[in-house]
Amino acid sequence: MRERVPERLRVKREPQRAAYDRETIAAILDEALICHLGFEVEGQPYVIPTLHARVGDVLYVHGSAASRMLRHAAGGAPVCVTVTLLDGLVLARSVFNHSVNYRSAIVFGTATLVEDEEKPAALRALTEQLTPGRSDEARQPTATELKATWILSLPLDEASAKVRTGPEVAEPEDLDLPVWAGVVPVHLAAEPSEYDWRRVRDGRLGPPRTDG
Amino acid sequence: MRERVPERLRVKREPQRAAYDRETIAAILDEALICHLGFEVEGQPYVIPTLHARVGDVLYVHGSAASRMLRHAAGGAPVCVTVTLLDGLVLARSVFNHSVNYRSAIVFGTATLVEDEEKPAALRALTEQLTPGRSDEARQPTATELKATWILSLPLDEASAKVRTGPEVAEPEDLDLPVWAGVVPVHLAAEPSEYDWRRVRDGRLGPPRTDG
Repeated sequence: MRERVPERLRVKREPQRAAYDRETIAAILDEALICHLGFEVEGQPYVIPTLHARVGDVLYVHGSAASRMLRHAAGGAPVCVTVTLLDGLVLARSVFNHSVNYRSAIVFGTATLVEDEEKPAALRALTEQLTPGRSDEARQPTATELKATWILSLPLDEASAKVRTGPEVAEPEDLDLPVWAGVVPVHLAAEPSEYDWRRVRDGRLGPPRTDG
Repeated sequence: MRERVPERLRVKREPQRAAYDRETIAAILDEALICHLGFEVEGQPYVIPTLHARVGDVLYVHGSAASRMLRHAAGGAPVCVTVTLLDGLVLARSVFNHSVNYRSAIVFGTATLVEDEEKPAALRALTEQLTPGRSDEARQPTATELKATWILSLPLDEASAKVRTGPEVAEPEDLDLPVWAGVVPVHLAAEPSEYDWRRVRDGRLGPPRTDG
């Protein structure tokens, strides 16, 4: 836990929802299947969906779709990687208090391109993040395939999480309104398949199962 | 359909997955519950999850968490709004050909703050996007609540979609490998609730139902 949170990390809106501890941030990153990578080229922000994986204090991001950024930032580019898990729809008695329950993590950092020697481990991490165990089952990448894979790396030094849980907010004057209020939980579900995807429990996506 | 797609819109990676027609883009924006808003402050990209709604050729984005940007860009700021719908896990016989099926839409534009007179309609659109019908059921916003709501608006002039569907890619030499290959479909599911959420059919999240 940081004693002083740097300005750009500090959650300004609804600060009571913020978390800066490594465990909370890592758990959100590890559960998410995809992330959104933000970068800037000549004053224009870009946000692209891509795959990510955390290995200790390093975050890997599949960067092939960001090649436009990489061409502009050979020496490293400031990026922002955000993952968001949607947990529920929060229906309040007033329009204003409608919300969603979610867990998000935001990582700021300078992205560098993963070099050849680090690439096999980084690609393995990305594969394991999506499909634990799969990198041993499927055919290993050839040198040509590794060359065609662009992976970015950034340190997990600057990250924050924001989490909303719990019921709807109700103003005292709204409590007697004849309006349904409550939370409708949502989750990512996997449809039945022959494949034993180790992230699925009872049809529900979650962190990798450790029971093999 | 544009005859010439502007440079920053053109999908560079896997261009065969790109779509630039309004119907495809609108359908993706309309189905998604959340978006990721990208902006830049003093050289640092930010990507924050938030709510959005499309009304014709205008995209509204709930901007309260972007107030840091708005303070820096009173006259309008270049932004990127991305929505991503995850549809499946694509397991190939080779590590390299693993992928995900998804539909994403990216909108570039200059965001301006919605003014007081436009705010009730914009807030209504954001509410209806999440919960169709709800803006008539719940208590209407007060003047103070409207004042506390920050909504950004951007035109849908510059947008593109990227869609991956279908089975895994298989290299001819991998076809006989004893590795399971196929697609595991995924979707956002709503858990049972007393609330008749008009975006749910058989527990599955989708575009608003038109059957009331």
